[in-house]
Amino acid sequence: MTSRILMHVGPSIGNYDVLSAAVQPNIGFASPEFNSAMKNSLEGFRYVTGSDSSYTPFILPGSGTVAMESVMSFIPRGSRILVVSNGVFGDRWEAIMSRYPVILKVLRAEAGKAVSTGEIEHEVSSGRYFAVAMTQVETSTGVRLDVESVAKAVRNHVDLVIVDGVASIGGETMKASHWGIDVCLTASQKALGAQAGAGLLVASPSAMEKLKGESTSGYFADLRNWSDIMNKFLAGGGGYFATPPIGTVFSIQKSMDLIRSETMEARVSRHEICSQAFRAGINHLGLEILASEKLRSNTVSGVMVDGINIADFLQRCMKKGVEFGAGVHPSVRDRYFRVGHMGWVQPAHIITALNAIESSLEEMGKKVDRGSALAAGEIFSRYPGI
Amino acid sequence: MTSRILMHVGPSIGNYDVLSAAVQPNIGFASPEFNSAMKNSLEGFRYVTGSDSSYTPFILPGSGTVAMESVMSFIPRGSRILVVSNGVFGDRWEAIMSRYPVILKVLRAEAGKAVSTGEIEHEVSSGRYFAVAMTQVETSTGVRLDVESVAKAVRNHVDLVIVDGVASIGGETMKASHWGIDVCLTASQKALGAQAGAGLLVASPSAMEKLKGESTSGYFADLRNWSDIMNKFLAGGGGYFATPPIGTVFSIQKSMDLIRSETMEARVSRHEICSQAFRAGINHLGLEILASEKLRSNTVSGVMVDGINIADFLQRCMKKGVEFGAGVHPSVRDRYFRVGHMGWVQPAHIITALNAIESSLEEMGKKVDRGSALAAGEIFSRYPGI
Amino acid sequence: MTSRILMHVGPSIGNYDVLSAAVQPNIGFASPEFNSAMKNSLEGFRYVTGSDSSYTPFILPGSGTVAMESVMSFIPRGSRILVVSNGVFGDRWEAIMSRYPVILKVLRAEAGKAVSTGEIEHEVSSGRYFAVAMTQVETSTGVRLDVESVAKAVRNHVDLVIVDGVASIGGETMKASHWGIDVCLTASQKALGAQAGAGLLVASPSAMEKLKGESTSGYFADLRNWSDIMNKFLAGGGGYFATPPIGTVFSIQKSMDLIRSETMEARVSRHEICSQAFRAGINHLGLEILASEKLRSNTVSGVMVDGINIADFLQRCMKKGVEFGAGVHPSVRDRYFRVGHMGWVQPAHIITALNAIESSLEEMGKKVDRGSALAAGEIFSRYPGI
Amino acid sequence: MTSRILMHVGPSIGNYDVLSAAVQPNIGFASPEFNSAMKNSLEGFRYVTGSDSSYTPFILPGSGTVAMESVMSFIPRGSRILVVSNGVFGDRWEAIMSRYPVILKVLRAEAGKAVSTGEIEHEVSSGRYFAVAMTQVETSTGVRLDVESVAKAVRNHVDLVIVDGVASIGGETMKASHWGIDVCLTASQKALGAQAGAGLLVASPSAMEKLKGESTSGYFADLRNWSDIMNKFLAGGGGYFATPPIGTVFSIQKSMDLIRSETMEARVSRHEICSQAFRAGINHLGLEILASEKLRSNTVSGVMVDGINIADFLQRCMKKGVEFGAGVHPSVRDRYFRVGHMGWVQPAHIITALNAIESSLEEMGKKVDRGSALAAGEIFSRYPGI
Repeated sequence: MTSRILMHVGPSIGNYDVLSAAVQPNIGFASPEFNSAMKNSLEGFRYVTGSDSSYTPFILPGSGTVAMESVMSFIPRGSRILVVSNGVFGDRWEAIMSRYPVILKVLRAEAGKAVSTGEIEHEVSSGRYFAVAMTQVETSTGVRLDVESVAKAVRNHVDLVIVDGVASIGGETMKASHWGIDVCLTASQKALGAQAGAGLLVASPSAMEKLKGESTSGYFADLRNWSDIMNKFLAGGGGYFATPPIGTVFSIQKSMDLIRSETMEARVSRHEICSQAFRAGINHLGLEILASEKLRSNTVSGVMVDGINIADFLQRCMKKGVEFGAGVHPSVRDRYFRVGHMGWVQPAHIITALNAIESSLEEMGKKVDRGSALAAGEIFSRYPGI
Repeated sequence: MTSRILMHVGPSIGNYDVLSAAVQPNIGFASPEFNSAMKNSLEGFRYVTGSDSSYTPFILPGSGTVAMESVMSFIPRGSRILVVSNGVFGDRWEAIMSRYPVILKVLRAEAGKAVSTGEIEHEVSSGRYFAVAMTQVETSTGVRLDVESVAKAVRNHVDLVIVDGVASIGGETMKASHWGIDVCLTASQKALGAQAGAGLLVASPSAMEKLKGESTSGYFADLRNWSDIMNKFLAGGGGYFATPPIGTVFSIQKSMDLIRSETMEARVSRHEICSQAFRAGINHLGLEILASEKLRSNTVSGVMVDGINIADFLQRCMKKGVEFGAGVHPSVRDRYFRVGHMGWVQPAHIITALNAIESSLEEMGKKVDRGSALAAGEIFSRYPGI
Repeated sequence: MTSRILMHVGPSIGNYDVLSAAVQPNIGFASPEFNSAMKNSLEGFRYVTGSDSSYTPFILPGSGTVAMESVMSFIPRGSRILVVSNGVFGDRWEAIMSRYPVILKVLRAEAGKAVSTGEIEHEVSSGRYFAVAMTQVETSTGVRLDVESVAKAVRNHVDLVIVDGVASIGGETMKASHWGIDVCLTASQKALGAQAGAGLLVASPSAMEKLKGESTSGYFADLRNWSDIMNKFLAGGGGYFATPPIGTVFSIQKSMDLIRSETMEARVSRHEICSQAFRAGINHLGLEILASEKLRSNTVSGVMVDGINIADFLQRCMKKGVEFGAGVHPSVRDRYFRVGHMGWVQPAHIITALNAIESSLEEMGKKVDRGSALAAGEIFSRYPGI
Repeated sequence: MTSRILMHVGPSIGNYDVLSAAVQPNIGFASPEFNSAMKNSLEGFRYVTGSDSSYTPFILPGSGTVAMESVMSFIPRGSRILVVSNGVFGDRWEAIMSRYPVILKVLRAEAGKAVSTGEIEHEVSSGRYFAVAMTQVETSTGVRLDVESVAKAVRNHVDLVIVDGVASIGGETMKASHWGIDVCLTASQKALGAQAGAGLLVASPSAMEKLKGESTSGYFADLRNWSDIMNKFLAGGGGYFATPPIGTVFSIQKSMDLIRSETMEARVSRHEICSQAFRAGINHLGLEILASEKLRSNTVSGVMVDGINIADFLQRCMKKGVEFGAGVHPSVRDRYFRVGHMGWVQPAHIITALNAIESSLEEMGKKVDRGSALAAGEIFSRYPGI
């Protein structure tokens, strides 16, 4: 097993207890132990997303993309859908939906920016849309959309408000019930910090109502096939449609236990402080964050570094014990790298990450103002609790 | 963690080393360790399915059903497809494919029987079919189809020969290249014995050719999105489309290591002897196997038990330390239970299972001829090697 | 990893959660996590032994024999000591103590019997003894001494009452404070069910007083070297004398957590019912228990089987998935085998064990009355809770 | 589980695969799996210590101190022994041996220095000694004694040459056969990098011969009780004297596998380069190493830091994710800290350690020349292989 620290954008910083909870040699999908793990995980996901008990939670085998595609279950043939895209994963909404007979309109922002609430509101007011699909934190850039404000603006214009929270849920505030969000979803391995292998989704009563009608959905990701068994798990029983990722579910259960102990408020706050400290260190080094100042997320940072070979830089950091992610946004791909500070992130990870960045840059002949870890340490010193 | 033995139909009998290989706290999908685990797993899957290096292997996040649905990637709109169904999971081919614009014909057998090669050959000769889809071992009944003979019979009549090997691959002989099979697939948690969380599939060059055309497939399960990165992994590199089930892949890698050490020949033989011994014990108890004599698989047995409450019986076996599966075939649902003897099954599991069955039946007032474990032991005594 | 059930006399039936708690890659003996694990384990050991807070608990690297030898710390040169020996491990008191300048008298019982309280009382009344050393459950025979009655009888005659509880503590009642026992000890891997690697001991204030004087003890096992740091751990801090078995201590901590949740009363009762059920099954088979009827322990059974090769029999049981222990008492060595039913034992283990015994005997041509598992099942059916 | 890096002096930097090899729920001390693990571990220890097959290896439950005390097994009553002490753990030889009826002479060096070969040679030439006991690497100061030269000098003057290699074996060259060393020993958790819980020792034929006579040893640590069963394990069988630390032995086996793959030459070289790089970084910061220049070990460094509170400094490093050890040598206790760079140490650990030291010193107002990690990196850049 590696002795590196993983600060890629997901999975990120692993927790051994959470990951080893997945080792369950003689537990099948029909056992009381698994039924209980599903119930705890489903209820935990309601808590994490700020969904009241009228919402139906789902855990699907696969990944965040499966959860995204399962949204087609709610959408009738021929519906008009507004996609808000701030980057590569916003564009994924378009890539998925364009495989189905629906009518898409996409609003796009450039790298590091977000489509404005005003622009979105204007669009939904002018055309009749069935749904608006957006992304809370854009993994390709680290931009955070103000989901609360967008939801408020579009709520009365559309049937469904859909949020991809893959890079945010568990590390950013999400209040699905209060904010009027119908569907929000994530993957197990991001800010929830569990084993990769599942997509998670929660649906409002109004969204669930749509399942009574027809859709153009495929088979595996058609939530009609899953809703009964999710209700059975919630009621303390069990059921089968396709084999669930048993180990992953036990891992999610363990994450949910730890998240409830920490509380979501403290967890979001920990993510916020760690991300601030990281940016303070980056700023000290004279580097820029890709996302505009008011759009920076708690969970992912894109760091701009001109004049060096990024692949070489990432290799050097890896040799120093920290793995980051390469850039993926087409317009700036070779000019930045991405850092995940989510899930089980602690100040020590931020300090180690900054030291690796600082040393690697210096090795590569880049002039930097040494002491980035101290700059981060100053932020942490204001919050002795974390 | 439970002290039971899991002899459900999948996952079945766990192997701690294989399952704990999934615990990889700081390994991300872009790491060299993961790239290597994917390469080994993909190559291992070729070995297990008897596919030569012209075949392309895939590992998909999700389950066996995802692998089944991904088959739509190969099938153009409007194609005629023949489905051979020997039970619930044969019917699943119909349930999946009927979500897409293709024309289906289904041949069905009653519980415990298989559609005959003759009937299949007659059908493909009389109508023009693009593909035939079948199931090697029907999980709902334990019936094994003679896939070699069916493939031979249909090979020259159809473009694609497709085999669901979910309940068989790893425990039954499969020779995709020699038998002329284009697509065969399974799930990680069945006879491969790895952690649940992935579907695996291998495709012939002829099948891969179809990916160049259009299909009616969805997004996540469209193999066009996955084929490039699978080739990258095979070449020793890496790539990303959607987050893979990282831990599950490490678990698959460990399974493949153990399978290569054991050899597929010895593994199939071990499954065969264990299943024979199990049936000898069941026979001793005066009970019937659901599958007809020539159709009994190495991996799953349905056991008919009239006159008792099966749910109560399964509870009693569970208290004695062995978990079996309930019946699911609609026509005999309450008259049988299912036993998985696959993956890491050893004689000791068979003996323990028979003892639990015998004791539970006797407790419930069922007259049985005691000594089922001895009857099984006689079979094992002829094969001192396992 | 094996798929057998371990019913040897210690370690016995493993608990994965307890054993895997030992995996602590970056925890050293000076960390706050380890300090806390020691504190919880020490306090837990007081609970398990019925010792009030005036007793000092110790956890020593090594095994039960280290804990036994550490008792020399309390004993001045030239002291007279009475050893009560019911078998091989009673004789170990003699073997240890005879390495030191003390005067020993040993009372012995034959295999399956116990030295009587009367005999012990008579001996301590007639000679002036500093200490009496005894064994609660004799691992070589499964005989349980009535420690409460012996302690009462000798309490006013000797300075120290010393009990080896290696094969009993955690599975039998022990009330050190109430019964007037000065020193009682065990090993981590027996009825506590934790990883092997530590001896545990608890000492009364009166015993601790002896540490102020000189002793003939060696260095490592001299409790003078350990008492300060045990007190530091109890106070929430830490300390170092020799490197502790860090993983084993985390495993012990996990055991103690589970034991407190179960409660000692329920735990002893579970052991008692399991051992009764086991003996009912053995009785059904027409076999004898080595220990006399009133001396049978909750934790270990010796089973007499004449007329067969015991080594061959044990091999057959092992192939059927259950490992038992060979006999070790010199006078009956080849005529019995030993079964540990302790720690995490559940009814399913007893049933599986009996089935393996029954089948193996029958294979070897021994006439047995089949149905031993049903006889055990009858006992369990009266206690639906366990 | 902590996300820190452990660079204390032992255990040090953990390896998850090695530590998790200890989880063996149903393996007892009489199983074939354990017998095989012992054989592999014993033979591996011969390899690691450069002992030919005439040497007898031992693995004892407990710790390095148990292995040290077991040396008394070889020593007759009244023998004269020369102890060479370079610090706290050299003094431990005296503390142990003074509990037994032997005559001791101790040569001592001041902190950071070593007793010279000349001084030792002079002493053994002038008095008749049965044995000389020394320490290869003194854990309290990081001083490495030139064991080869001392052994050569004393070989013809004494019966037994005894080396405590607790802080060295696995990270420093040891050639017991070639150098004429009779007994050398270590603990499982130091440079072998396995789970804490065992002492390991290897004894020459000449040492083994002494076991035929009487000794003043205690019981548990008397090698007479262990030598037969070690030979049985070496011969492929098994045996019992006291319950071995089963999990720890499996962990040792895994370490030995990894060490053989790496080769001892490469392993020593890796330790040497890492320690050099660490010292280069420390030197860059303007700090001093406690050990004199020619006496610096591959495994442990003492770092002098005047003018700050060391406890506060160690806390700050811990918050930054690295745990070091406090000073323990009485003469400089509050003026230095200790760093373990042994076992599974990699360049990334050294870099992370230096960054934590540099940042913490700077936070505390200590003037340092930033860039210690770069100075270390320069060393590593000359050895691209590690």
